[in-house]
Parts: sequence; C-alpha cells; structure tokens
Amino acid sequence: MTEETHGHLYPAKRLEAFGASALTALGLPEQDAALCAVRMIDADLRGVDTHGIFRLNHYSQRIKAGGINLHPQVHTVRENAVTALVDGDNGMGHVVMNFATELAIRKAAESGLAWIGTFNGNHAGAGAVYSTMPVAHDMVGMYMTVANANHMAPWGGVELILGTNPISVAIPAGEEPPVVLDIATTVTSYGKVKLAAQKGESIPVGWMIDRKGQPLTDPRRSSEGFLLPIGGYKGYGLNVIIGMLAGVLNGAAFGRNVVDFNKDVVSRNNSGHMITAMRVDNFQPVESFKQEMDRVIREIRESKRMEGVDRIWLPGEIEHYRIRERLKNGIPLAPIVVSNLRQLAVELNLPDRLE
Amino acid sequence: MTEETHGHLYPAKRLEAFGASALTALGLPEQDAALCAVRMIDADLRGVDTHGIFRLNHYSQRIKAGGINLHPQVHTVRENAVTALVDGDNGMGHVVMNFATELAIRKAAESGLAWIGTFNGNHAGAGAVYSTMPVAHDMVGMYMTVANANHMAPWGGVELILGTNPISVAIPAGEEPPVVLDIATTVTSYGKVKLAAQKGESIPVGWMIDRKGQPLTDPRRSSEGFLLPIGGYKGYGLNVIIGMLAGVLNGAAFGRNVVDFNKDVVSRNNSGHMITAMRVDNFQPVESFKQEMDRVIREIRESKRMEGVDRIWLPGEIEHYRIRERLKNGIPLAPIVVSNLRQLAVELNLPDRLE
Repeated sequence: MTEETHGHLYPAKRLEAFGASALTALGLPEQDAALCAVRMIDADLRGVDTHGIFRLNHYSQRIKAGGINLHPQVHTVRENAVTALVDGDNGMGHVVMNFATELAIRKAAESGLAWIGTFNGNHAGAGAVYSTMPVAHDMVGMYMTVANANHMAPWGGVELILGTNPISVAIPAGEEPPVVLDIATTVTSYGKVKLAAQKGESIPVGWMIDRKGQPLTDPRRSSEGFLLPIGGYKGYGLNVIIGMLAGVLNGAAFGRNVVDFNKDVVSRNNSGHMITAMRVDNFQPVESFKQEMDRVIREIRESKRMEGVDRIWLPGEIEHYRIRERLKNGIPLAPIVVSNLRQLAVELNLPDRLE
Repeated sequence: MTEETHGHLYPAKRLEAFGASALTALGLPEQDAALCAVRMIDADLRGVDTHGIFRLNHYSQRIKAGGINLHPQVHTVRENAVTALVDGDNGMGHVVMNFATELAIRKAAESGLAWIGTFNGNHAGAGAVYSTMPVAHDMVGMYMTVANANHMAPWGGVELILGTNPISVAIPAGEEPPVVLDIATTVTSYGKVKLAAQKGESIPVGWMIDRKGQPLTDPRRSSEGFLLPIGGYKGYGLNVIIGMLAGVLNGAAFGRNVVDFNKDVVSRNNSGHMITAMRVDNFQPVESFKQEMDRVIREIRESKRMEGVDRIWLPGEIEHYRIRERLKNGIPLAPIVVSNLRQLAVELNLPDRLE
C-alpha cells in the first residue's frame, strides 16, 4: 500500500464529470466518455491512483495522435453459451472491458460460468475494477491482462519482452467485504521505480536486477536492468501463463509485439484481456457460501498477530475501506496530477478547471 | 529444480505395477489401485519426487488406520452443463481428482468450458498431473488445491492457519512442449526445509521467518517459524484466494479445519480441489493457436540470455524433457525411498520386493 498523497480532495462525482467532459471534448460519444470516466474513478476510489484519472492526460495524448478509435464497433467474433472472443476495434480499453465483463456476467447468469477474451483493445485501468463487477451478482470474477509495456526479462534472460502482467480475482462474502486480489506478477511496478528516481531515493534489493543479475538499487540506472517477478522463477511462470491466456489465446499482443504505450501513442496496441464470471450457487446456496466466507475471513483476521502489527488484512479489504472513505471525503489528487488535469482542461476549453 | 538424486533407476511401468499391487493388497479395488499408481508415477516422471511413489508409505499408513474410504461412491451432488460439485466420499485423492478431471474434460468437450470442484477428498499428488490432462484434448487446464497441512501464517500474523496452496495451469502448444505452471504459493516447501535439517544445512534468507518477523535460517528451528509466501503480501493474497476457490467454495477444509495429514492419519481430511478445462478452439482454430504458441515459446527461449545462463526454460519444459528421459532410462529413487518401499513390500507380502 502506498500512503495517501495528501493532495487536494475532489468528490468522486466531480472527477467523473470532469473525466467525462474531457473525453467528450476529445471526441468520444457521450455514453462512452461517461463510462470510461466511471471506470477510471473506480480505480481512484480503490486507491489505485496510478490507474485512475492520473492517466487521463496520457489517454488524451493517444486520442489526439489518432491512436484510439473513437467510434469502435466492439463486437464478438466467436461465441457460444459460455465463451466469447471480443474484438475491441481499437476502442478505449474501458469500453472494451466493460463490454466483455457485462457479457461474462450475462452468460454466467444463464449458464453458470463464462470466459470472455478480448483483443484489439487498449489499457483499461485497474484489474479489480472488472473482476469485482461479477461480485454484485454473487459471482466470482477473474481478470488477467498483458501489460502495455515490457519491463521484465524471462528468467535467466536480459531482454525486456515481458510486462508486469497482472491478475485479479474477486470472491463475494456476506457481511464482510468481498475478497479481492489485484496483483502484478512483478515485485513492484515500473511507476514506483520512476517515482523513487524523481524523489532521489534508492530502491530495495529485490525490486530490480541489472543485466548481470546483480541487485540494482539506484533507480536512475533503471534502464540498465529489469523488474523481478514475485517468487523468482515461479512469478516468471505465472507471468508467462497470464500473457498466454490474456494475449496469445485471443490473438492479442504478447512478447515483442507489445507496443510500449508510453513511448508510442499512435500504433495500435492490440491489448488483450480476459475475464471470467462464475456463479457461486453452482456449488453452494449463496447464503451458506457467504456465511462460510465471513467465518474464514474472520478466522484469518482474528488470528494471532505478529508483535507490532495492528491488524491482519484480507486481500482487498484496505481498498474496501478506502472506497468508503473516499466516497465520503473525496479523492486526494497529488499537486502534479491536478496541474496536469488543469492544463488539459484549458487545452480542451472545459467549463470545469478543477480550481 | 532439485538435482537428480542419483539413486537406483526403476522403469516407470515397474513402479506403476508395484504401486498398484501394494494398494490392492491394502484393500483398494484393482481398478482404483492401478489408477492411483499411474497418477503417482506421473508425478515421479515429471520429477516431482515428493508427490509420487515416495508418498506410498504414508498413504499405506492412512489406509491401515482407516483414514481412507477404500470403496468410495465418488459422485456429483450439484451439476449443470459446465460445472459440478463432486463428493469424493473420502476416497483416495487420485481417484477423486481423476473423476473430476475426466468430468471437466467431458463437459468442456460438449460446452467449451467447465469448472469442477471437489470436497471430501484427500491428497492427490502433483497438481500438474491433473492440469495437463485436458491438454491432450486441446484444452487449457487449471488446478488449485488446499494443502494438507498448514505451515504458513497470514501476512502480519503468526498462527499457522494457511498451507502452501498450489496452482497449476497447462496450455497446449504445437511442436513445442505444452506450457505448464505448477507452483506452491510459498517460496519453498516444508519438505525442503526438513531435508536441509536432515543434511545439517542452513536455509536461505527469504524461505522462512520467525514469530518476530526475523529471517529464520536454521532449519532445526523450523517449528519456531513459518514459510513465507512468494512476493510477500501478493503471494499471501494468492494463497488465500486459492484456498477459498478450492476449499470454501466446495465446502472443503480451509484454515483451522485443515487436518495435518502428517500428524493425523485417521481424521477425515475433507481435502478440496478444483479443476477447469477450456477448449482453445473457443477462441482460435486449434492449429493457428498452436502455431502462435510455438512462435512465442521460441521467442522467449531464443531471447538474449544472462551471462553464464545456458538456456532459458519455459514453464514445464524441464519436466517435459524429464518425462522423456525417465520413460527411457527409468525413475531414480533415493535409497531411503527404496528402503521404505521394500519394507512395505514385506509388510504386505508383495511378490515384487524392488530388489
């Protein structure tokens, strides 16, 4: 968990409106603009600040450069009762993934289970935003994607041909918050390395190694090395599997054909994602499942803590309370983010300048 | 990868026959005994020596103590076209998981996708044995289980209420070996810690910590600490999610109600497993998918290596070549394993004494 950046607080609804008006001004249909804004603010509410409205300037750059299809025909190209392959037609990633996730929920509602793959999409924000959508329907959600830049090498290799390929899984509970995993398969993100470099701080051993396999702790040297996977060869394996299921299976980019979306804002990303939804009542009546989830959640939380540890957290629990807190008090934006968004507002001549 | 224990070599077929005759002598129906033996030797062929015939003495102990139902009615208690909940009736884990995996393949063959959960089962050996079964049918397989002993604490906790909960995923390829991940969510297994203690060696920092969170490197002190998850809180989260999907969802043991199968050979384990199977031709024609898999596999393998690294391996590739090699030259068994199996042969008055 990163600590809160004690920036100015903005109500979620205001940021949603701001994002929607910016994207509309950039040429997106109103409905798509509103949807993208909601999914972006969903990430901010969870505290995944690196995947929320912070990205709006970058999306804007890509849209202006013609790198995004503003009027995509998002459609299924293969389909049966429980699976579908969705062509995102190079639309905004949030639009494509929202389509895919709603389709997964609809199919799972009818058949119990569904697996939807997408290709020809783009960066869609935070994984948990999509994996948690089935939870409201008493379903387990699972999401994987191929990251939009390669900052990792194969185990034993030195070429940057793998990304941080994340996985997110969400499981409903009863009175307790849903259990939500949302992890990259690298120990840390490249964003955190860049942040440390900006702050002039060193990074811990275990985050990166150089091309000789030695620990790299000076983030200004980050271009000489690469991110490490979690658990060494285990995380490398998990990373590759995710890339194959979210990328290769769907005919989406993986490996050398991944476009670095930071360096190239024009080329089609062909970003791949997958989402599954599964009704828990396939296996147990919903209520008894939820009761049992609550019981094991409490068992874990109330188990004996290490000296100096105030609380044991379940996966996604911190985010659950953060959503509540941010819905109530607003979303804190770092000064640099506010300043970038204000600049965008001027460029696009938006009525709201986030003053 | 552990290095080969340069023990005596036994042909796979001979060990299968030995295992089958031992289990038959212990009271299993011939067909079940043969099936268990095959699934055990499958693990040995892959090189997962800790999950193969090495376990036969332990299974025998449990069977003699009445801890296993020798004539289980393995059956589905909830079922639709794409999911099923299987009651293992406390049968041998291999029998239960073989039933579940064949059911998953059958349902996926008809409907494209299937998710089978099991409860009331037992230890079933190596995860990859089951996740790879769908691969022969051009399907992706995914397997998760709740480990049969708790050697890990929640993140920030000190109570041993979590196991090494593993995940295995297998994806078909063309001319290349299938890509097969099979990992515990802990950095290492408790077995490796015990082995280091036996050898009088210390264990690396990062394998275990003590109850104050300090690195524990003396394996003789292992009872004072616990295994660490891969990637810290990330692996803890993955571990919990696996426990919930393979355990809680199926009404199987997870957390405090996991029976330590090493210490207690009588109590019902209520071991939980899950297996999914998914036809790749939901998303692409099989042949073009396999060609693309071969291409990305080769891209990774042939990417630039770190100085001193001979070869980049894909997940499951080492095991693929080990299967070939062991099928040809035999399976090496460590002297202690051979001696235990010989003792069992005497006890059960088997014709083959593995001399």
